[in-house]
Amino acid sequence: MCSTASMGHRLNRVAVMGGTHGNELSGVYLVKHWLQDPSELQRRTFTVTPFLANPKATKRCMRYISQDLNRSFTKAFLLSKGTKDDLYEVSRAQEINQLFGPRGSADAFDFIFDLHNTTSNMAACLISDSEKNVFTMHMCHYIQKHTQTPCPIYLYGLPGQENYSLMSVAKNSLGLELGPQPHGVLRADVSAHMRALLACGLDFIDLFNQGTSFPAFDIVAYKLIESVHFPRSPDGEFLGIVHPQLQDKDFLPLKPGEPIFQLLSGEEIFYEGDVPIYPAFINEAAYYEKGVAFLKLEKRTFSIPPLETPAASTP
Amino acid sequence: MCSTASMGHRLNRVAVMGGTHGNELSGVYLVKHWLQDPSELQRRTFTVTPFLANPKATKRCMRYISQDLNRSFTKAFLLSKGTKDDLYEVSRAQEINQLFGPRGSADAFDFIFDLHNTTSNMAACLISDSEKNVFTMHMCHYIQKHTQTPCPIYLYGLPGQENYSLMSVAKNSLGLELGPQPHGVLRADVSAHMRALLACGLDFIDLFNQGTSFPAFDIVAYKLIESVHFPRSPDGEFLGIVHPQLQDKDFLPLKPGEPIFQLLSGEEIFYEGDVPIYPAFINEAAYYEKGVAFLKLEKRTFSIPPLETPAASTP
Repeated sequence: MCSTASMGHRLNRVAVMGGTHGNELSGVYLVKHWLQDPSELQRRTFTVTPFLANPKATKRCMRYISQDLNRSFTKAFLLSKGTKDDLYEVSRAQEINQLFGPRGSADAFDFIFDLHNTTSNMAACLISDSEKNVFTMHMCHYIQKHTQTPCPIYLYGLPGQENYSLMSVAKNSLGLELGPQPHGVLRADVSAHMRALLACGLDFIDLFNQGTSFPAFDIVAYKLIESVHFPRSPDGEFLGIVHPQLQDKDFLPLKPGEPIFQLLSGEEIFYEGDVPIYPAFINEAAYYEKGVAFLKLEKRTFSIPPLETPAASTP
Repeated sequence: MCSTASMGHRLNRVAVMGGTHGNELSGVYLVKHWLQDPSELQRRTFTVTPFLANPKATKRCMRYISQDLNRSFTKAFLLSKGTKDDLYEVSRAQEINQLFGPRGSADAFDFIFDLHNTTSNMAACLISDSEKNVFTMHMCHYIQKHTQTPCPIYLYGLPGQENYSLMSVAKNSLGLELGPQPHGVLRADVSAHMRALLACGLDFIDLFNQGTSFPAFDIVAYKLIESVHFPRSPDGEFLGIVHPQLQDKDFLPLKPGEPIFQLLSGEEIFYEGDVPIYPAFINEAAYYEKGVAFLKLEKRTFSIPPLETPAASTP
């Protein structure tokens, strides 16, 4: 994903993905609606395509059928030869890459929004792989200025790690991660919030396309350091659960010596780092299968350069 | 389930069920712990057996494998001849009925606690099939008096309907339904609450067994009228979602003319009854597959007779 690829040019084609995880229902419900009636997505300067990313998992209200679709966009998966025995999500990733990419090509869609929910208390989290996505960082800044509720920015890319996400297919992208909402449940307040955030993102693209100038700014974002795992017995049973003092404290500082896990014996396990970190995805249901209790993030301030005004015509 | 069967006699054998639904993790986690270390369940006057009711579903963190175990205790299922093609939960129901019943027999366990979670805002809901379970109603009364948080009583039995639940295997029983907690997630606060409620219920049995007298009282409970379904299109797609004004209002009055559903068009659907009802299990994830948006309950006050002091010896 390279933000400079679309900077200086108008964005023509935008996709909105729901159901990348089939049990995260805000995006599923909204995209199903927009497939019937896309009028609220329309803007003057570009087209918007709503798309149900994992329809089989959506139908069964499961995160995925064979493997996580949102981890299936590595080169190895995208280039693997199709056989009848292919995992469903590998075939689907290849299909999505053909429809909205191919990744890294001039033909790729200009922007993908990917709609997600979390069981964690993440508010309206804005997700990108890196602060180097200047266009996306400007969009985040615009959304933060135009909404009343907290919209922390989470940057998930690790140094040297290949991008594996659906969003990476397009030239630029933004993930919207709204919670808390149980998987398999649709809360009206969460869907309304997601709808408003997406509208704000679309407005930003429209303004950019019309030549609005967006100056430089400094912005706080949270960058992934590593995952923190639940304490487990040798046979894999969970020995401890997220400490009640940590529960729901996503994006708040966790200081050295503060509790992170509670054992049923009453014993506590404490954070042993040297500096405060900022946890996110605390007690996310989907991460239990990987044994992940939360993600450790660092809070940083980034200086984002101004956004070039786009050329009047399509490149 | 007949409360009078155990009244007048000491209770000797009590079971605590977790994982009747395999993705309701408070009970799963607590029962796994108690299987290793049952000390906190022990009371002087009776034995307590912790039991993981649906281990296969628990292992996969699903509600069930083939069908809902907690709907598998009808006569038809319990008496069906076992074949290799049997649904897992039917076989499991028969096994549980052998271990803790047989239902309606003198051999049946005296009491079953069944531990559940809900995604709905149900607080610490106490579940029985009928106010006619005098022993259970006394236990509910005792728990309500000895805990600080709301413990509404939900009575799920409908006139003429056969009892289908796991709890029905024992002579008396109580379901603990704690929420909100997403399925597949374990919140420390919810588990601690469940543990405290169960301890209170066990204390009540211990006091009863020791000859404590429990006088008559009046008590409020919520009795099931019927399920309310989501509005759906002819092809089964959800057309509306639970209205934000109804969300999280479990056990609060819903008055005629108040909104219950919101369509994506913005249109609202209103409750059209003649009298206030009390909704529960509002937007429960597990009920989506049945299309159920919430349960309609009536609030009633019941006069519960005194509990006979038990005979000193086992009947």
